[in-house]
Amino acid sequence: MENFTRLVFADDAGRVPREKRRSVLGGKGAALAEMGTVLSLPVPPAFTVVTEVCRQYLADGWPEDLDEELGRAVTGLEERTGRRLGDPGDPLLVSVRSGAPVSMPGMLDTVLNLGLNEMTMVGLARITDERFALDCKTRFLVSYAKVVMGIEADLTSMVSGAVEAAGVGRQADLAPDVHRSLVVDIERAVFDEAGEPVPEDPSEQLRRAVAAVFESWRGDRAVAYRRVEGIADDMGTACTVQAMVFGNRDDRSGTGVAFTRDPTTGENRATGDFMLNAQGEDVVAGTHATLPLADLAKHLPEAHGELDRALETLESHYRDMCDVEFTVEQGRLHILQTRSGKRTGAAALRIAVEMVAEKEIALTRAEALARITPAHVESVIRDRFVDQEGEVLARGLAASPGAAVGQVRMTPAEAIAGARRGEAVILVRHETSAEDVDGMAVANGILTARGGLVSHAALVARGWGTPCVCGVGVMTVATDHFSIGNVVVSEGDFVSIDGTTGAVVVGEREVVAAKPPAELDVILGWCDEIASGSLTVRANADTVADARAARMAGAVGIGLCRTEHMFLSPQRLPLIRAMIVADTADDEEAALASLVEAQREDFEEILAEMDGLPVTVRLLDPPLHEFLPDLKELLVAEARGELDVEGESLLRAAQHWAEVNPMIGTRGVRLAHLHPGLYRMQARALFEAVEARRAVAGNPVAEVMIPLTVSGPELAEARRWVIEAAAEAGLTDPPVVGTMIETPRAALVAEKLALHADFFSVGSNDLTQMTFGFSRDDVEGRFMTPYLEKGLLAHNPFDSLDVEAVGELIDLAVERGRRNHPDLKVGVCGEHAGDPASIRRLAASGVDYLSCSPARLPVARLAAAHAVLEGFAQQKGPDR
Amino acid sequence: MENFTRLVFADDAGRVPREKRRSVLGGKGAALAEMGTVLSLPVPPAFTVVTEVCRQYLADGWPEDLDEELGRAVTGLEERTGRRLGDPGDPLLVSVRSGAPVSMPGMLDTVLNLGLNEMTMVGLARITDERFALDCKTRFLVSYAKVVMGIEADLTSMVSGAVEAAGVGRQADLAPDVHRSLVVDIERAVFDEAGEPVPEDPSEQLRRAVAAVFESWRGDRAVAYRRVEGIADDMGTACTVQAMVFGNRDDRSGTGVAFTRDPTTGENRATGDFMLNAQGEDVVAGTHATLPLADLAKHLPEAHGELDRALETLESHYRDMCDVEFTVEQGRLHILQTRSGKRTGAAALRIAVEMVAEKEIALTRAEALARITPAHVESVIRDRFVDQEGEVLARGLAASPGAAVGQVRMTPAEAIAGARRGEAVILVRHETSAEDVDGMAVANGILTARGGLVSHAALVARGWGTPCVCGVGVMTVATDHFSIGNVVVSEGDFVSIDGTTGAVVVGEREVVAAKPPAELDVILGWCDEIASGSLTVRANADTVADARAARMAGAVGIGLCRTEHMFLSPQRLPLIRAMIVADTADDEEAALASLVEAQREDFEEILAEMDGLPVTVRLLDPPLHEFLPDLKELLVAEARGELDVEGESLLRAAQHWAEVNPMIGTRGVRLAHLHPGLYRMQARALFEAVEARRAVAGNPVAEVMIPLTVSGPELAEARRWVIEAAAEAGLTDPPVVGTMIETPRAALVAEKLALHADFFSVGSNDLTQMTFGFSRDDVEGRFMTPYLEKGLLAHNPFDSLDVEAVGELIDLAVERGRRNHPDLKVGVCGEHAGDPASIRRLAASGVDYLSCSPARLPVARLAAAHAVLEGFAQQKGPDR
Repeated sequence: MENFTRLVFADDAGRVPREKRRSVLGGKGAALAEMGTVLSLPVPPAFTVVTEVCRQYLADGWPEDLDEELGRAVTGLEERTGRRLGDPGDPLLVSVRSGAPVSMPGMLDTVLNLGLNEMTMVGLARITDERFALDCKTRFLVSYAKVVMGIEADLTSMVSGAVEAAGVGRQADLAPDVHRSLVVDIERAVFDEAGEPVPEDPSEQLRRAVAAVFESWRGDRAVAYRRVEGIADDMGTACTVQAMVFGNRDDRSGTGVAFTRDPTTGENRATGDFMLNAQGEDVVAGTHATLPLADLAKHLPEAHGELDRALETLESHYRDMCDVEFTVEQGRLHILQTRSGKRTGAAALRIAVEMVAEKEIALTRAEALARITPAHVESVIRDRFVDQEGEVLARGLAASPGAAVGQVRMTPAEAIAGARRGEAVILVRHETSAEDVDGMAVANGILTARGGLVSHAALVARGWGTPCVCGVGVMTVATDHFSIGNVVVSEGDFVSIDGTTGAVVVGEREVVAAKPPAELDVILGWCDEIASGSLTVRANADTVADARAARMAGAVGIGLCRTEHMFLSPQRLPLIRAMIVADTADDEEAALASLVEAQREDFEEILAEMDGLPVTVRLLDPPLHEFLPDLKELLVAEARGELDVEGESLLRAAQHWAEVNPMIGTRGVRLAHLHPGLYRMQARALFEAVEARRAVAGNPVAEVMIPLTVSGPELAEARRWVIEAAAEAGLTDPPVVGTMIETPRAALVAEKLALHADFFSVGSNDLTQMTFGFSRDDVEGRFMTPYLEKGLLAHNPFDSLDVEAVGELIDLAVERGRRNHPDLKVGVCGEHAGDPASIRRLAASGVDYLSCSPARLPVARLAAAHAVLEGFAQQKGPDR
Repeated sequence: MENFTRLVFADDAGRVPREKRRSVLGGKGAALAEMGTVLSLPVPPAFTVVTEVCRQYLADGWPEDLDEELGRAVTGLEERTGRRLGDPGDPLLVSVRSGAPVSMPGMLDTVLNLGLNEMTMVGLARITDERFALDCKTRFLVSYAKVVMGIEADLTSMVSGAVEAAGVGRQADLAPDVHRSLVVDIERAVFDEAGEPVPEDPSEQLRRAVAAVFESWRGDRAVAYRRVEGIADDMGTACTVQAMVFGNRDDRSGTGVAFTRDPTTGENRATGDFMLNAQGEDVVAGTHATLPLADLAKHLPEAHGELDRALETLESHYRDMCDVEFTVEQGRLHILQTRSGKRTGAAALRIAVEMVAEKEIALTRAEALARITPAHVESVIRDRFVDQEGEVLARGLAASPGAAVGQVRMTPAEAIAGARRGEAVILVRHETSAEDVDGMAVANGILTARGGLVSHAALVARGWGTPCVCGVGVMTVATDHFSIGNVVVSEGDFVSIDGTTGAVVVGEREVVAAKPPAELDVILGWCDEIASGSLTVRANADTVADARAARMAGAVGIGLCRTEHMFLSPQRLPLIRAMIVADTADDEEAALASLVEAQREDFEEILAEMDGLPVTVRLLDPPLHEFLPDLKELLVAEARGELDVEGESLLRAAQHWAEVNPMIGTRGVRLAHLHPGLYRMQARALFEAVEARRAVAGNPVAEVMIPLTVSGPELAEARRWVIEAAAEAGLTDPPVVGTMIETPRAALVAEKLALHADFFSVGSNDLTQMTFGFSRDDVEGRFMTPYLEKGLLAHNPFDSLDVEAVGELIDLAVERGRRNHPDLKVGVCGEHAGDPASIRRLAASGVDYLSCSPARLPVARLAAAHAVLEGFAQQKGPDR
């Protein structure tokens, strides 16, 4: 123990050094202490059992001298309130709450009205009234039985059942005889299950409640939460015991929640709800309508004025929007609790920007950013429905946020056909698998009957930012329609789905396109300033349109420009097919020459769009058969005698290039080593585009990236082709040539690869596939969902980086690469580059830049700044 | 320099401490020193320039004082021989040879008769005769020009051309005038190419010869060899200068090579060849018939007696079979050189066993084993032709050793059809690719026109132990025949191929089945004793026949028993298909029940065969579609309207289970998590078999192995199924359950896996596939060969373990696994477990056992003992 006692009064917390209060008193205890001492706010008397005691308890059981100390502390409460615990004349009642140093779901709920027993119950009824006393008693019994005794019987339903049966509005309105028999019923249910009654002795009640708080620290949910969040197991929780005040005492009493600013819009005005003659839980339960905070002035004007001043005090003290629980007992205000207020994305952005600007608060940018979450940003960049209400046909899982309206299509083929006709499409499936991906790609929204938040549909949709509602259990999916109850929705009908709420609506609802508030740009600008030189964000972009979107979304370059997409357009496909089926070196050469033309134009446009910013071009990566028709279809056509001469030639090529496992077959630099002209051609097209841009005074910044490397000599030769192509194209400066780190071997032999690379770009998708041996095409539709549901994997490693194995390989790649090449630039261009949790881990690995899809840029820019502010990334000097 | 001089005389080498002689004097110099001092054998006077001088030379050029020292050493030679270098009266001639501390191909050849010039030539002719002097001169010119001056003109052909034109038997028989003009021609050719003549001054001749020896240390071939063998670049070579003695002096002279034992059979009697009136190179050149060593007694009886004594002295000194070069000059014996004698496999085995038994030599087993190579063992376990001569149609690359006879089949389909008819098949292809694998699997031998020692055909054949000749460039392959010159060999004709020599013969040659000598068992018994407790060898075996072969070949257990092969027989296939197409849980259950029956019987037989030895059963590993017909074929059949109801059902199943990348898709434990009944069923069948064996007093030792694990919970649940199945089967002892380490992630998170595993078994084939991202099915036929030819990979990582990345992952798996489980048993069951180079690396990683195909067991047992003797493995106590 340090030099303060183990039970600390809120009005005497000055004894605990301020910087230690959170760890010693827990979050709630520290807030009470702050309010009770520094701020002199009307806080009901309270003391906190410090975290150290919890740690002792967990190690050695109930500390010998704790009973005596608790007794002394109760005496302290009694002196402060003028009431005594267990005194039938004027009983002291208390609440008992847990409060860990960090916010932690899964810990103990609150026990209310502790101190009630047969005798004090009679006393309370005498000095107040019987209805009030019975109301308190019921609340005590239910909370104590559940929280301290672990009773599983549904006591809350017993209460609501009695209220309903009596036809009254709420528990407090039950007739005393009815309420008395309800209390007896509850007591019997507790005895039946526990084999003992709720203790009568208030000291024993208190002792057991405190022990229950400590025990909850090692409850399953709490342990699991700490494991996921990386919270130390030996921190322990504090326990706060506070004198009860009664918002349910009479009509001059009430209880409510107030925010210092509007949590929806962020507007700088106090807002909130309250109820007269009620205890705290009634406000939250939503069983009765609440009144707006402004009305408090009318009902309880004195308390209102006092509350207004308290809110001002709290906000300027905490320099944050606060959420305040208050209770008025017989006209007198008490502040029970305060904490940082939850807010919408729009509010978070507005409050952050305004609090930095306001002189009195003068938040630093770092402080402001720390309060903005990826979800805040996400919420302001997604489309939503104008009217959040309206007739909802069914509700499924909110699997990928955003609103989408379109015509129902029941198969991928119909979806594609619809999209070709220019229609908006909602793809509806029982569930999705890899075969649906083409249809999903063209859909404006996806709706499934089966599958959870980690189902194939959910995973793919989130990756693409396509709105998705899944797991609509009440839905039946047929071949040309689906039905929910007796509503039948046919192929071609319009539906609207809201992936943010899970709502499914028949017909066309009006959508508001996302219109991010002006504050978003301000905030992201701060992010860029903070992350600059440590962890910058580029975009993956294959077309001019992508490049434009990337630049608008604040990308500082293109980190992945996939050249294969340039080959897939209807005009280009015949050219690459001609190369594939070429019988002679001359034919191949001729086909390559036509491709040079085409690629040069593409590159020129993209370099123009990104003028002054780096564009990292990945040379051809996929296996050649991806440019050919499907082998199975060709074989079927042949069996039906439907192939012409060209078809026969394509069949032969498809057979030749067919592979058992194309993902780990002849692709990337391997293919290039079989057709060295290919990379030369691509590099030449790029460097000719660079020269062309320079000729018109542009500032093109091109980088070339070799995919799928496994060995030094393999990379060295490919690098040589690129350098020779640069010379042929007339470049006088040496080109920047790097390699992707996609195979585990590349990561492990990074020291050697670094000798031939100006930069590394970690392809975290492929690296994940090979590290796990998970073919993404096969895994996500087949066993990822059961694996996640059964807890065989902590999370989907394609969603969020596997911090163990894949993370370690990235660590090794960075560390070993820089051994031979200390200023080696390292980027990441897998989907993880847009995932906040992954970004922290990647920053810790020491990467210099991220590259994600333009849609994920805002979140990635925020997450990069967070990673820097939280010390995961090191400042490395000028941007690279 | 240490305390001995830099030029050391063979008869004065006592000055160099014995243990340093090899590193200071090189191998040859040390042998001369040993013979000249300790053994007092008649060695022609010689001195050696020590390795330190070479190192000085390579660092700083020709040492200033070396000329003076060389001069003093030559004086020493002159004193010992009574002749003087450059003295026309009675010239001293010397040979100059390199000699590194380790045997190293690619170093300088010998220069003979150095010291000859116009004047000494005349003198030599006068004191001997002109023919002899011209013979010496030609030998000097040719060796000096090639070795010291780097002349590329083919001087040897000039000599043989002249000999042929003159119609005489050999160079020494040329008429003097003809021989004189040959000398002039050679001198002109040297001048034309070098722009200078061979130097006249004998001191300059010597100086340049010594420098050339030193230079050859950094020649390309020597550097490359050292890199491959891991020999330090700074070791340097010594250079030995020895007085010439002349086997070509007269008919009382001669030269030869003797072995202290028979190098072919190992029999303990001196053997060898010699020629009268000849110099050393004539014996090796094979241009003239040699005489058997025994005849020396007749021709030169005194020398013969002396040689016999010398051979005895050498063998008992070196305690090894020695290869001795000797020369007799005018009746007097000189020993020029000795080294350990090369021997056949049979001889190596016999000599080793006998030398351990012989009291005078009393070799230790470790010494004996160190002299036996994997190739020795390989050579005695392969079939060969009775007659190694005979009419050879063509010769290709000896790609996979062994002899094979069979009927020519030109396509995989024909090969399979032939094999089904019970015929022996030689599959003949232009080259092979993945599509040929089924045909290769049934072939007795494989013959290709194209492809090198690392071609697909060579790789696959070596893996399977199938004889293979590849790269027969003169061969033309058509659809139903192949031709070589004007010989046409049609489909169905018999051919014989010898994969040990590369010979291709038309017709059926007689084959001797390998009959390993009795010594093999003795030797391998020693191996097992030495490796026991450090690195034991099990076999991969899936059937009773395999198990019997494994036990006979000395396996101490089965390290990999693949259960899928049990499903592929025609009786079983319908059962597993029934499981795959089952629509209901009941149907699936019923199908599984039938499989239990079948598997139990298989297991019982294998456990009986391996009674008392561990059998490690791998639960089902391949993806389910491997048990279904090929999807493409089903689709084509459907397009042709040829599918019946069962076919339709199989088509649906094949479509459902089709995967884009099956190797990294739904297989192994992943499949089991989708069908948990599967592993339960297999484990139950195994444990019921165990119980049945126990019921008849057997001693079954079963271990269960879970394939393709990536996470702790995934393994823990599979382990639970197995343990429950053991309990259901009535086992009372806990089963042994381990996991395979096949994914990079498994290796990296081994610490966690070890909590749920009794052992690890590294699947090095799959681990290699995933670490490189190399699908073996696709890679070997497509780009492995060009990759190896271009040096993009140092070797095929499926042939020999990738010591860098895959090796590091295995290191990590072992080390991390044992962190949580210090006595964790670790095995390796990929093909690397049968490859000697890989075995050393695996031993260094700390693995406990290997498991390879029965055919590779003898080599693996030897290699394991070598790894232990060389200190790569640590003794770990009792076998595990």
